[in-house]
Amino acid sequence: MYRDRIRLETLWGKVMSAEEAALSIRDGMVIGMSGFTRAGDAKEVPVALAERARRDPLRITLMTGASLGNDIDKTLSEANVIARRMPFQADPALRRRINDGEVMFIDQHLSETVEQLRARQLRPVDIAVVEATAINEKGGIVPTTSVGNAASFAVLAEKVIVEINMTMPQELEGLHDIYFPSRRPYREPLGVMRPSDRIGLPYVPIDPQKIIGIVITSKADSPSRIEPPDEDTAAIAGHLLEFLDHEVREARLSPSLMPLQAGIGSIANAVLHGFTESRFSNLTMYSEVLQDSTISLLDSGRLVFASGSSMTLSKPLYERVLGDIGRYRDRLVLRPQEISNHPEIVRRLGIIGINTALEADIYGNVNSTHVGGTHMMNGIGGSGDFARNGHLSVFVTKSLAKGGKISSIVPMVSHVDHTEHDVDVIVTERGLADLRGLAPRERAALVIDNCAHPLYRDALRDYFNEAARSRGGQTPHLIEQALSWHARLRENGSMQG
Amino acid sequence: MYRDRIRLETLWGKVMSAEEAALSIRDGMVIGMSGFTRAGDAKEVPVALAERARRDPLRITLMTGASLGNDIDKTLSEANVIARRMPFQADPALRRRINDGEVMFIDQHLSETVEQLRARQLRPVDIAVVEATAINEKGGIVPTTSVGNAASFAVLAEKVIVEINMTMPQELEGLHDIYFPSRRPYREPLGVMRPSDRIGLPYVPIDPQKIIGIVITSKADSPSRIEPPDEDTAAIAGHLLEFLDHEVREARLSPSLMPLQAGIGSIANAVLHGFTESRFSNLTMYSEVLQDSTISLLDSGRLVFASGSSMTLSKPLYERVLGDIGRYRDRLVLRPQEISNHPEIVRRLGIIGINTALEADIYGNVNSTHVGGTHMMNGIGGSGDFARNGHLSVFVTKSLAKGGKISSIVPMVSHVDHTEHDVDVIVTERGLADLRGLAPRERAALVIDNCAHPLYRDALRDYFNEAARSRGGQTPHLIEQALSWHARLRENGSMQG
Repeated sequence: MYRDRIRLETLWGKVMSAEEAALSIRDGMVIGMSGFTRAGDAKEVPVALAERARRDPLRITLMTGASLGNDIDKTLSEANVIARRMPFQADPALRRRINDGEVMFIDQHLSETVEQLRARQLRPVDIAVVEATAINEKGGIVPTTSVGNAASFAVLAEKVIVEINMTMPQELEGLHDIYFPSRRPYREPLGVMRPSDRIGLPYVPIDPQKIIGIVITSKADSPSRIEPPDEDTAAIAGHLLEFLDHEVREARLSPSLMPLQAGIGSIANAVLHGFTESRFSNLTMYSEVLQDSTISLLDSGRLVFASGSSMTLSKPLYERVLGDIGRYRDRLVLRPQEISNHPEIVRRLGIIGINTALEADIYGNVNSTHVGGTHMMNGIGGSGDFARNGHLSVFVTKSLAKGGKISSIVPMVSHVDHTEHDVDVIVTERGLADLRGLAPRERAALVIDNCAHPLYRDALRDYFNEAARSRGGQTPHLIEQALSWHARLRENGSMQG
Repeated sequence: MYRDRIRLETLWGKVMSAEEAALSIRDGMVIGMSGFTRAGDAKEVPVALAERARRDPLRITLMTGASLGNDIDKTLSEANVIARRMPFQADPALRRRINDGEVMFIDQHLSETVEQLRARQLRPVDIAVVEATAINEKGGIVPTTSVGNAASFAVLAEKVIVEINMTMPQELEGLHDIYFPSRRPYREPLGVMRPSDRIGLPYVPIDPQKIIGIVITSKADSPSRIEPPDEDTAAIAGHLLEFLDHEVREARLSPSLMPLQAGIGSIANAVLHGFTESRFSNLTMYSEVLQDSTISLLDSGRLVFASGSSMTLSKPLYERVLGDIGRYRDRLVLRPQEISNHPEIVRRLGIIGINTALEADIYGNVNSTHVGGTHMMNGIGGSGDFARNGHLSVFVTKSLAKGGKISSIVPMVSHVDHTEHDVDVIVTERGLADLRGLAPRERAALVIDNCAHPLYRDALRDYFNEAARSRGGQTPHLIEQALSWHARLRENGSMQG
């Protein structure tokens, strides 16, 4: 059994239980696990590890690609296994521990983690635990629904545990393009010049002697939980599409635009869905997460190719795509997140990046991570890789949250993840502000008029006018009141005066 | 006369006075001028333009590479010529107008301006005014002591005015490497794989018919005003060199380190001077501004090659280098700032970026631009190009300013130019904080203990402890007090309680 999945005979004896494999993981180790936004995570070993830790406590540094599915971050953090975590997460139980200061969370640009590992700026990975569709004749690992950082973890780690996932069709082989930048300072250019360019191998090449255990699983990926488009997200999509249409009419973009990137989540997904009804054609994506909307766009014929680092789909789409992967395989590629998000390629291709803001301020700074300036939501993810280096950096958000108690447009954001230098366009359901080539005072007028909700518009205008009148400056602020909206929310449960 | 400087005969008739050339510049135009940190600025036409504007008012959008010398920004702003300005400036008179809201200043990453121009995201340049050493047989422009954005302005503008600077030795020809990235989405990789790689032409290739006027000048560049190293800047250099030494001992860096970048200014210059006494060898620079310290390092033999976009030297070094350029020419190259600062190359080469912070906060966010959160100092310059994409992002600052009334380490910076995701190391004269791989709470302890001045250390510790205790979070803040240090400074003239 499993021989078609483990095609290197010398590895047949390495099949073991998750419990046995997990025994190699010891207190204080750095563990690199596969998994990117719920796709392709290792599903058995972490659960066995948590089980063991309940009897025999241990704590590790856990590195992944991005967030995990199957409640793995929850299970591990409830068993108190995670001492340190990077570079992204999205689990409520883990989030609580991070915000309580019990787990040290290092929130990184997703393109940078393995660059820092390779340069030994981070502690080396002791053991990689990676999900695979198969191990090929050479001992190379064929990934599943994501690559993330798993390929680099496997190559850089001293030891590798592989989880073979029997639910993954073997036809996934050939979907991946695994390439590692050569070591600096003698690095060659990365050869990706179009989203469809393949520059590497369809498997992760490692020394098979590093494989210390192979675990078999039949657990599926957790499906994505995407809320259907609502009136607000549809309005956001409408404003952005109208803007892009205008860019085409002005001949700043062709009807195939530039390669698209869209962040994870309901708003960005809804915006991409909007393209299905658009007049754009021959679209391409060069993104990190391929969501339901990517598949709809491929099916509609508007999108001709999508490059990503993971496929994170709802249950019906997951079944449709995995059940008929041959239909999609020549229009999709999954790459290491270092490559999907690489500044060199993002700048060269001229990507249009569409990412979600928690809040934006009137001058164009964006907070993507910290609720109230203090509490971590998920992490910056890849938004910075795209916003800094692409052709157009778009941030989307609903203008209100918590039934109007929170304005997503504020005088000053309480945490900055994207600076005023990196934000080209802000879109809410109220409208769109094109900030390109504008000074902060000009941006403020546009953001207030076009993006803020009428509930807060006057207060924002009053703040700006008073700051400009009494204080002046490139970026007028009443510094003692700049964060008063957040303080009011904390005290009174609402930003409203 | 001038025939050796204007080697295309058909252009001989284009020589005219600055006043005559300036007549082509009309109200509302976008003018792109050469000049990068006081080097290679157009020196005659802007003065003639200001003169004319005093009689016959007009306002323009002025784009440059970076800051100008010869009081040109002052002269133009006092004549009320500048309506809009980008992407960098450093003039007190202009700064006042910017902060009064009379001049709209667009503060950009220096690598991005011409990318946005090429993509028509900014209004096109009507006339380029560029300084030249000579015009060659083909009508190509040989730049002087900087390239900056001048090459792209000349190529993209409808009309070009050239100022031939007779003080520039003709031996400057061959110093420059002019390359333009091809238009997206079909862009090729940039071929720079070592700081010394040349990928372009030694002149700016333009259609000579676009040249509408040639003005002759004998004005020299303004020399840089670098303060000599003092006890504090020497201490900062000492801490950084000790850290780099440690990186070499840990085998994370070789003794030739990685290509160095250093921002403009006295602190960064002093730090580079420190390398002269170090044990590092075969150093290279891939930077934007080459300052006095670059020449000293070349002379000492420690530095083998320096790539930049401008040479901004003190009077003695200016004379030494320009008087004997042949001695340096094969160890220096000047490139367009798009290339000197390009994310693709910065990431590929793995640059060590050393830039100056106005202030940093305990969690590692850096403010490079805004005094008190509102008033523009100079601009972000290229610091973001290097800090985001390099191997190591270092920010240096003295721990105190204004004789102790200001702490450069604060609970929360009043403006963010470099986010916590982009700052690896903070150095003051008190010590160094290595923030790599640390969570915000861990960073706070290090920054307070190692970098803050003892005058403010207890207050910072109290703030952090109280925020962590009473509020918690990934990044603990007392949100209503986070900017109270800046408010206190504004009200009482000091951050001290």
